[in-house]
Amino acid sequence: MQTFPTERAAALSDGVFAVAATLLVIDVRLPAGQGGFTFAMLGPIAPQILGYVISFLVTGQMWLAYHRRLQLVQRIDKRGLALNLLFLMCVAFIPFSTAVLSAHGTRDAVVLYALTIIAASAMLTLLWLHLRRHRDWLVAGPHAGVDHRREALRTLLVPAVFLLSIPLAWLDPDWAMASWLLLVPAALLVGRR
Amino acid sequence: MQTFPTERAAALSDGVFAVAATLLVIDVRLPAGQGGFTFAMLGPIAPQILGYVISFLVTGQMWLAYHRRLQLVQRIDKRGLALNLLFLMCVAFIPFSTAVLSAHGTRDAVVLYALTIIAASAMLTLLWLHLRRHRDWLVAGPHAGVDHRREALRTLLVPAVFLLSIPLAWLDPDWAMASWLLLVPAALLVGRR
Amino acid sequence: MQTFPTERAAALSDGVFAVAATLLVIDVRLPAGQGGFTFAMLGPIAPQILGYVISFLVTGQMWLAYHRRLQLVQRIDKRGLALNLLFLMCVAFIPFSTAVLSAHGTRDAVVLYALTIIAASAMLTLLWLHLRRHRDWLVAGPHAGVDHRREALRTLLVPAVFLLSIPLAWLDPDWAMASWLLLVPAALLVGRR
Amino acid sequence: MQTFPTERAAALSDGVFAVAATLLVIDVRLPAGQGGFTFAMLGPIAPQILGYVISFLVTGQMWLAYHRRLQLVQRIDKRGLALNLLFLMCVAFIPFSTAVLSAHGTRDAVVLYALTIIAASAMLTLLWLHLRRHRDWLVAGPHAGVDHRREALRTLLVPAVFLLSIPLAWLDPDWAMASWLLLVPAALLVGRR
Repeated sequence: MQTFPTERAAALSDGVFAVAATLLVIDVRLPAGQGGFTFAMLGPIAPQILGYVISFLVTGQMWLAYHRRLQLVQRIDKRGLALNLLFLMCVAFIPFSTAVLSAHGTRDAVVLYALTIIAASAMLTLLWLHLRRHRDWLVAGPHAGVDHRREALRTLLVPAVFLLSIPLAWLDPDWAMASWLLLVPAALLVGRR
Repeated sequence: MQTFPTERAAALSDGVFAVAATLLVIDVRLPAGQGGFTFAMLGPIAPQILGYVISFLVTGQMWLAYHRRLQLVQRIDKRGLALNLLFLMCVAFIPFSTAVLSAHGTRDAVVLYALTIIAASAMLTLLWLHLRRHRDWLVAGPHAGVDHRREALRTLLVPAVFLLSIPLAWLDPDWAMASWLLLVPAALLVGRR
Repeated sequence: MQTFPTERAAALSDGVFAVAATLLVIDVRLPAGQGGFTFAMLGPIAPQILGYVISFLVTGQMWLAYHRRLQLVQRIDKRGLALNLLFLMCVAFIPFSTAVLSAHGTRDAVVLYALTIIAASAMLTLLWLHLRRHRDWLVAGPHAGVDHRREALRTLLVPAVFLLSIPLAWLDPDWAMASWLLLVPAALLVGRR
Repeated sequence: MQTFPTERAAALSDGVFAVAATLLVIDVRLPAGQGGFTFAMLGPIAPQILGYVISFLVTGQMWLAYHRRLQLVQRIDKRGLALNLLFLMCVAFIPFSTAVLSAHGTRDAVVLYALTIIAASAMLTLLWLHLRRHRDWLVAGPHAGVDHRREALRTLLVPAVFLLSIPLAWLDPDWAMASWLLLVPAALLVGRR
C-alpha cells in the first residue's frame, strides 16, 4: 500500500483553510451608490460582518481540530487522502453557507449553516477513525499519551452544538444563532485539564 | 544542469490546487433580489452545487494523481517545472469550465469540460514521462517497487472516462455527465491490490 | 498540555497573508462601459491603486513583524493558536477596510482603516506576550540575544502611527492618510543598530 | 542583524504566485444572459482566454526565475524581505494589467502590461543584487559553480522583450503583443548548454 507523509495532506488543507477563511470577507460589502462613508453605514451590513466573524472562528476552530488529530499521525494512505478531500469540500462550502446566512438569517439559512458544519465535523471524524485503525501510522513519543476519550469528546462538541441549534431554529432563528455561543464555555470546559 | 527539489514544484502546485478548488464555490450563488431563504431556493442552483461537488472531486483526484507521481521523484529540472506550470494552467482553468457547465449543461459545455480534464491529464502524463527518463532523480527505497504499469493505467483512467463522454455528449449531455460516475467503480477496480 | 510546532501556525498565516494581499487587487477595476483604454483612465481609479499599494505594504509589514516574533519561538499551544486566529481575522479584514477607504476616503473611512490595523497589531502583541511567558518554548542560540526592548518598540510603532492618524482624521482625512508615511522614517530609525 | 531562512520568503511568495495565477481565470467569463453554450461563444472571449494563457505563463516564468535565484541563497535579511514584498506587489498586480489588456488591447493597455512585467523584473533584479552582496548567505556546494553571467542574461531577457514591445505598441498593439512570442526562442537560446 502506497502511503504519504501526512504533511502532504496538511499542505493542501492549510491552503484550502486559508483561502476559504479569507474569501469570507468578500461578502462584506457596502451597498453601491451611496455617498461618503460614515460608521452608520456599517449598521445595515452588521449581519455580514457578524457572519464573517462567526465563520472565521468556526473555520479556525475546525483547522485546530484537524491539526490536533493530524499531528498524532505520521503517514496517510489513499483512502485517508480521499476522506481528507471530502472534509475540505465541506470546509470550502462554508463561504456559501455564510453568504446565505448573512443575507437572510431565516430558519432554513440557519439549518443550512448548521448542516454544513455538521457535515465537515462528520468527515473529520471519519478521517480520524480511519487513521486511528492503523496503529503503525501513529506518532510514538510525546503525544502517545493523548487522552483519546477527551479528544473524541472535543471532536463531538462542535457538531453537538450545531445539531442542537437545528430544532431551536424552528422556534426562533436568532435564538438558534445565539446558541452557537455555547461553543465558547464548552471549549473552556473541555480544554481544562 | 540546475535541478530543484520537487518540493519546490509541490508547494506552488498545492497552492494552485487549493485556490482553484476553493474558488469553485464562488459560482454557487443564490439569485439576487429574492425574499427570505428557504431550502426550495436551492433547487434552481442545484446544477451549480453539483458542478461544485464534481469539480472539487475531479480536482482532488488530480491532486492525488499528481502527488502519487511526484513523491517517487526527488529532483526536477527546468523543463519539468515548465511542464508542471502547463499542468497547473489546465487545473486553474477548471473553475471556468465548471462555471460554463453549471450555467448551461449543453453538449458543448460537457465537451469543453471533458477537454479541460483531458488536457490536464495529458500534461500530467508528459510531466511524468519526462521525470521517469532521469533514473537518478527517482526515489530509491520503499517506493522503488511501485508497479509502474498499474500507475500508468491509473493515470489513463481519468482521461479515458472523460474521452468516452465526448461522443456520448452528442447523444445526450446528461448521459455524458452521468458517465463520469464510472470514475468511482474504475478507481476502486484499479486501486485494489 | 498539547503543543504544536510554530511552523503549523506559520503555514496557515502565510496562506492568509498571501490571499489577503493578492485579493487587494480585486478592487482595482476600471469602470465598465468605456471605450479603448488610455492611461488617462487610471486617473479616476488612482485612489484604488494607492489603496492597493498602501495595504499591500502594510500587510507585508505585518507579515514581517509576525515572523520576526515567531522565529524566536519553537512551540505554540492551543491558546497561542487561538490568538493567532484572531490576529489573522483582523488581517483578512484589511481588504474590506481598504475597499471602503479607496471608494470613499472620508474621515470615518480613515478611522475604520486605522482601527483595523490597530486591532491586528494589538492581537499580534497579545500573541507575543503569551508566547514570551513560556521561556522553554523560546529558541536558544543565535536569536537568544535579541533586544526585546527594541522589539517591543518596533511592535508599537505601526499602531502608534495609525493611532496618531485618528485625531488627525477629524481635522483632515487627507492629512491623516499622509501621516501614515511616517512609517517609513520611523522604520528606518528603529531598524538602525 | 536578524536574518531569516529564505524558505520564509519562499512560502509567502509561492502563496502570492499561486493566488495571482489562479485569480487570472476570474476574468474569463461568458457574457451573461445568453442561451445554451456553444463553442462559437468562446470567440468573443478569445482575448480573455489568451490573456489568461499569456499571464499564467509569464507569471510562471517569473516564479521560475525567482526560485532559480533564491535556491542559491540560504539566509535573507529584513531589507531582502522588503524587496521581496515589492517584487510580490508587482506580481500581484499582473491580474489587473491582464484584465485591462484582455478587455481593451489598445496601445496603452499593452504598455501598461509591459510596464508591470518590467517593474516586477526590476524588483527581482534588485533583490538578487542585494542578496549576492552577502557572500556568506550564498549556498556552497553543488550550486556554487552557477554561471552568474548567464544567470544575469536570463534575468534581463524577460524585461528586454517587454521593453522592446513598448515602442512597437506605438506602431501596432497587435504586433507588440506578437513580439512577446520572442520569449520562447530566447528562452531556448539561453537555456541551451
